[in-house]
Amino acid sequence: MPSDSFSSHTTCVEVALGERSYPIEITSSELDEIGARILLRIPDLTHALVIFDSEVEKRWGSLFIKSFSEPSLPNGNRIRVDSIAVASGESSKSISQLAELWQWMLDRSADRKSVVIAIGGGVVGDLAGFAAATYTRGIRFVQIPTTLLAMVDSSVGGKTGINLPTSKNMIGAFWQPSLVLIDTDMLRTLPKRAYLSGLAEVIKYGVIDDISFFEWLEENSRKLVDCDDKTVRRAIAESCRSKANVVSEDERETSGRRAILNYGHTFAHALEATAGYGTLLHGEAVAIGMQMAANLAVATKLCSTELLNRQTTLIESCELPTTFPDADVKSMLVVMQQDKKVSHGKLRFVLPERIGQVKMVGDVDQAYVARAIEACR
Amino acid sequence: MPSDSFSSHTTCVEVALGERSYPIEITSSELDEIGARILLRIPDLTHALVIFDSEVEKRWGSLFIKSFSEPSLPNGNRIRVDSIAVASGESSKSISQLAELWQWMLDRSADRKSVVIAIGGGVVGDLAGFAAATYTRGIRFVQIPTTLLAMVDSSVGGKTGINLPTSKNMIGAFWQPSLVLIDTDMLRTLPKRAYLSGLAEVIKYGVIDDISFFEWLEENSRKLVDCDDKTVRRAIAESCRSKANVVSEDERETSGRRAILNYGHTFAHALEATAGYGTLLHGEAVAIGMQMAANLAVATKLCSTELLNRQTTLIESCELPTTFPDADVKSMLVVMQQDKKVSHGKLRFVLPERIGQVKMVGDVDQAYVARAIEACR
Repeated sequence: MPSDSFSSHTTCVEVALGERSYPIEITSSELDEIGARILLRIPDLTHALVIFDSEVEKRWGSLFIKSFSEPSLPNGNRIRVDSIAVASGESSKSISQLAELWQWMLDRSADRKSVVIAIGGGVVGDLAGFAAATYTRGIRFVQIPTTLLAMVDSSVGGKTGINLPTSKNMIGAFWQPSLVLIDTDMLRTLPKRAYLSGLAEVIKYGVIDDISFFEWLEENSRKLVDCDDKTVRRAIAESCRSKANVVSEDERETSGRRAILNYGHTFAHALEATAGYGTLLHGEAVAIGMQMAANLAVATKLCSTELLNRQTTLIESCELPTTFPDADVKSMLVVMQQDKKVSHGKLRFVLPERIGQVKMVGDVDQAYVARAIEACR
Repeated sequence: MPSDSFSSHTTCVEVALGERSYPIEITSSELDEIGARILLRIPDLTHALVIFDSEVEKRWGSLFIKSFSEPSLPNGNRIRVDSIAVASGESSKSISQLAELWQWMLDRSADRKSVVIAIGGGVVGDLAGFAAATYTRGIRFVQIPTTLLAMVDSSVGGKTGINLPTSKNMIGAFWQPSLVLIDTDMLRTLPKRAYLSGLAEVIKYGVIDDISFFEWLEENSRKLVDCDDKTVRRAIAESCRSKANVVSEDERETSGRRAILNYGHTFAHALEATAGYGTLLHGEAVAIGMQMAANLAVATKLCSTELLNRQTTLIESCELPTTFPDADVKSMLVVMQQDKKVSHGKLRFVLPERIGQVKMVGDVDQAYVARAIEACR
């Protein structure tokens, strides 16, 4: 099967990280050939360790495993495929689940040439990626994100890890995948609310990095909401390209450049922490958080109200919330004081100057922050 | 305190790994200034997470902690020092001990600027190094090896990790320290047998890499056995330099170059696995393993008997064993078949061609291997 048989509906984004560079292939309706696609990129694959999200496994598991056993595999390779499912949800990013994966890999005689394939959302990607980063001090890793959020966010950047009982993402490694495969068909089985939630991060890239992408989103929000294949592929590709540019300038989060990806997130984390678990999806909190940040930027005369208005309209047309009536200003401020981005007690925010351009602003007056939250209640 | 106040008894070996390069400082009788020495190399240190081997902590703990609180610290820095001790012995390289360290670091509010300082032998270095590699996706790490084996072996190479219940060193990361500090005074409290055991790895570097070092060892074996400061410092420095050269050519063990460091180790691992836990120290098994490898090289006409004889004499003059009368040929062969260096069932060995030069030899006839073991019973 020639490689160009994939090309008509496939966009490829290259994440440039020197010897750790890798491609993100974005396509639609190619799920039955996914095994062959992986083999084209990793021709020496002999042993696949497939780690599924348990919900994804129910829907796509047999199709995926079957795609590795097709007689049309290139070079007639014979692949040993072992698979395991981990429970959906954040609680799988635990030490005990990680220990179970390590033992499973050993029991399946995984060695340095084995390849971990993670199929699921951010939780499975983070967990399986960290297992890959640490098994025999690091083996190769393919990511197949199945949620829009994972496609546009965690598929770029190499962040892997688990939680400690009282602290998220405290343990982990920077470990770049060898390949990321995205098929928009997988979005069709995602609940609509979860799908829309992912659009918040897509909008974020327009605001922080790319006005022409923002304008394209304004024109195409209807098609995006309807999950039109071609439109979604482009939105994913542009998002990955934006994030890849930022990450390739600051792979290990040392220069501060990567911080711009946190636009809206300081508010969002405080919303998530105070709203009660499960009240808001992450992307919904990010949408409201971006509104709070834009309000703060207007109040501190960093940007015009036009930016705020255009952002509001775009978020609304993506059927995402722009306000959260139950927001508790006082407890949100307490949470924000504990945020990792706080430097010696002074609140710092990523704020927009104009569409496509943000800056890090330190030492923001708490009264302005409180008013920005109020504005979105 | 000017940095050259250390220089009279200090040798510095640079491990060249690009942006991950680091120095190894080798000295004697400077333990009371060890905090100041670390600060000279890491001037922005504000929070030290000291992880001791429990035996080492009993002997050196208070001296070490005190060295951080001297008023003579450069720049008047104030350092927050937290410390913890882990039990001596291989069983500390466990998932549960690692999880405990992670939680301890979080409880002590460690962040990305905190620095892990490991003080102990290989076990503590591997464990603490892996904790450093994975806490917030990686923080800085200083190694203070306290055994000769750790000084000449695990202080170079960046291998960190833990064991799974049934398999050693399966989980880990390549994570280079920022600094290695070696003070030969710490060897004075090591049991003599453990000290001598470390000399086996020193001899190894002579055989695999450097005939002039081998000759120097022949001339100075008496002083080495007596733990003469100056002689030991030179032996450590030359060993680290040899290993650093190999590692800088093959940092992540991908080219095969690093394999030469396993001279004698395929036999040694089989000896350790079959002799019963604790019968032989690792270095003793390496000494006998090198004798078996040299016998195999002679039998396969790869080298002269002169090499074997000189190696035998040097090992004996370092008061290390050259034979193991209880060696069980059959069970050793079974273990060797399971070794990671076995390729499709064929035994592979690092064998000497002449002193200072080894090669990897594949497809060795089992009968020769059995006879090489017999020769050292």
